[in-house]
Amino acid sequence: MPEAKEPTPISESLAEILQEEGYGADELNDLLTVVHPVDLAEFLDDLGPDDRAELIRLMTDTRAAEVIAAMPHDSRVDLVNRLGEEQVSRIIHHLNPDVVADVLPIFPEPKETRVLSRVARERREDIKTLRRYAPHTAGGRMTTRYVSMPETATCGAAIQAIQGNADAETIDYVYVVDPDHRLRGVCSIRSILRAKPDTPVASVMQSEQLIFVGHTLDQEHVAQVVQKYDLKAVPVVDNAFRLLGVVTVDDVIDVIQQEASEDLLRMAGADRIHPLHESVLKRVRVRLPWLAATLLVQLAIAWMIRGYDDVLQKFWLLSAFFPIVMAIGGNVGLQSATLVVRGLATGEVTLGRSMRIFLAEIRVGIFIGIACGAAGGATAFIMSREGGESLRFALTVFIAMSCGISSAAAFGTLIPLACQRMKVDPAVASGPFITTLNDVLSIVLYLTLATLLIL
Amino acid sequence: MPEAKEPTPISESLAEILQEEGYGADELNDLLTVVHPVDLAEFLDDLGPDDRAELIRLMTDTRAAEVIAAMPHDSRVDLVNRLGEEQVSRIIHHLNPDVVADVLPIFPEPKETRVLSRVARERREDIKTLRRYAPHTAGGRMTTRYVSMPETATCGAAIQAIQGNADAETIDYVYVVDPDHRLRGVCSIRSILRAKPDTPVASVMQSEQLIFVGHTLDQEHVAQVVQKYDLKAVPVVDNAFRLLGVVTVDDVIDVIQQEASEDLLRMAGADRIHPLHESVLKRVRVRLPWLAATLLVQLAIAWMIRGYDDVLQKFWLLSAFFPIVMAIGGNVGLQSATLVVRGLATGEVTLGRSMRIFLAEIRVGIFIGIACGAAGGATAFIMSREGGESLRFALTVFIAMSCGISSAAAFGTLIPLACQRMKVDPAVASGPFITTLNDVLSIVLYLTLATLLIL
Repeated sequence: MPEAKEPTPISESLAEILQEEGYGADELNDLLTVVHPVDLAEFLDDLGPDDRAELIRLMTDTRAAEVIAAMPHDSRVDLVNRLGEEQVSRIIHHLNPDVVADVLPIFPEPKETRVLSRVARERREDIKTLRRYAPHTAGGRMTTRYVSMPETATCGAAIQAIQGNADAETIDYVYVVDPDHRLRGVCSIRSILRAKPDTPVASVMQSEQLIFVGHTLDQEHVAQVVQKYDLKAVPVVDNAFRLLGVVTVDDVIDVIQQEASEDLLRMAGADRIHPLHESVLKRVRVRLPWLAATLLVQLAIAWMIRGYDDVLQKFWLLSAFFPIVMAIGGNVGLQSATLVVRGLATGEVTLGRSMRIFLAEIRVGIFIGIACGAAGGATAFIMSREGGESLRFALTVFIAMSCGISSAAAFGTLIPLACQRMKVDPAVASGPFITTLNDVLSIVLYLTLATLLIL
Repeated sequence: MPEAKEPTPISESLAEILQEEGYGADELNDLLTVVHPVDLAEFLDDLGPDDRAELIRLMTDTRAAEVIAAMPHDSRVDLVNRLGEEQVSRIIHHLNPDVVADVLPIFPEPKETRVLSRVARERREDIKTLRRYAPHTAGGRMTTRYVSMPETATCGAAIQAIQGNADAETIDYVYVVDPDHRLRGVCSIRSILRAKPDTPVASVMQSEQLIFVGHTLDQEHVAQVVQKYDLKAVPVVDNAFRLLGVVTVDDVIDVIQQEASEDLLRMAGADRIHPLHESVLKRVRVRLPWLAATLLVQLAIAWMIRGYDDVLQKFWLLSAFFPIVMAIGGNVGLQSATLVVRGLATGEVTLGRSMRIFLAEIRVGIFIGIACGAAGGATAFIMSREGGESLRFALTVFIAMSCGISSAAAFGTLIPLACQRMKVDPAVASGPFITTLNDVLSIVLYLTLATLLIL
């Protein structure tokens, strides 16, 4: 295509950015036609929203579809919103139904219907089917583009079906179904290739120990199944065991990354913030509720401390140990909670095994508590040597630290397990909540002990 | 096999456990022959080490190999250590070379050589090759069992090669190599199936925009490549572009889970502890260094606070705000660090984009700092109304909190980015380190301000 090599006209701002990034106007066509769509999507992601839309308009529809499919959800939605109705309809024609189902809900009702009406009928049905399922379930994650065969078909016919089905998202397995489309067995492509062409698929399919998921299963559990059994795809069935679709391993990888990020960010009280794309206001809005809750509790702690004015006025050195009495317990609690949250996510921790983890962690807590408490107590003794209360002060610090740290380990283990049992995301309740709870308990214990022993 | 259904003799302790778990002695044979090896491995994982070894001894060698391959590293190593030399050699014969390479290093040199000498020659070469590469690199993660063809071969021959290669770990791609085994192109199985049998592989292979990794590349980056381009496997090459092996998507999933767990646990200062399998002593040993470092700094903070005795003795209410002055900053710093650590792991954050993240996070810090500082200052004002210093006290709390929180956001962003630049794992330095640094800064700032304003 030598003519296509003519520089495409672009806006000044885009030209500037391209220049900054080291692309001359001459290289724009390369960018639009030769670069891997995934890399192009990444490049577009760094551009402003208007420039992004402008570049997409310059691409062919197939190319635009490839690039849009490779973009993260937020940029994808923003981009599609900026394109004209007609172009969207044309691009949708080349998009996988799951990408379309991800994008469509952003349109107001009449526009959505108009866009859908321009899409070929069969594809429209696929899209409508997928949109019936909740987004974070097996149904919401599956593709309807797989290869299935009746039980009576031969392996040769299965290979022909694979050859004829250019659209299939996965050909690692051929799914064998009965006339009601109920799942009867799974053939790996390897077993089909190794069989004689006239062998019936029913005789090479695996039908015992079939691994499948229900369409309402949470995506995290779908990912656990795929990972556990080292699958390339897992079939999704309804209550009548009818085959609805297939969740493929590339989606599973995205789920695993997403869930791991969610856990980590939730434990820090930041929930889901994209590190690059969110505005300052959005970042503040997501983080402020957690911080406001922590703030309230910490303000309450200040009020509580004021209630112990007798002992604090008598022995002001007590306050020098506020930070240490709180910090180590907070860390230990976070460690225990992290072990449990992560273990629940990977499936290594189950509610049935709760007792084992709890017993191990409580022992760890007591051990660390006594060790750190002794170090704290010794320091307290040395620091207050000149006063007459040094031994009682040291004892206060020792008991408060060892009890505070042990209870932090216990709460750190129990709270996420309790959340899991009550079907609340354990990561949500585990981060700031556990450290703040620990702060309150430690300070109250410390100052009550001080009142009893020193006052 | 009706004879095999005879109850197998087992030890009393194992019989007891099986009974507890709901397996009668009759069902033991089912367990050993019918249950999916992955589920069996999970069941074994819950048993004591001796019972585990006993059950493995009852299995056929192929079955034992399947189960061992599905076990986590630690239990696998422990188990193989308990088996006799002869049985290990027989089982190794059925194990993938990468599993063998994982297990062999545990044997003392003479035993290792003896075990290896019993393994078939070709397989021995595979194992030796794999052991040359570092464990967490592309080379250490790859399999050498893939399908490769010369450029002159036809698609029909490629299908025959797949059919004849029962051992291949992946048949999603056929790799095309030149006579020096340099990678020339990749054919997907789909493109081979869709081509006519006499079409040369060279004409259906992809040879531009080839995606591959060098053998020294860190496994986290290998995973990023596979995830980014939605691959089922990625070829591993040496410096001369010779094809060494293939990293498959199931290994990539394990890497992603492992790296996510590592990040999360490291940020909590717990590094890699398995939530179930580690002894109390091991848990303490892994966690204590982080806690000891935190403990030392917190003890130093206690000494520092003692240095401000003048102002604290004059105005003891200052100490009631120690917790709040430290807590919010610690949370904000952890949020920023988590965003960066996670973004670096998923590849969304790159050093080139550092500035964008830093500017956004510092703005968030200032915003949250002023909001929380105002709330803290107002509370301080109300709590000290009766004294004459209330306004100056409120100002001290406000400035200390807003500056402390802003700097926490700055450090929380910069420290992991700096670690990444210096090729230190950002997660290691991000958890306890950032909160502790923030504690020191906040308290010093707070008490210095108090000395200036109140004393």
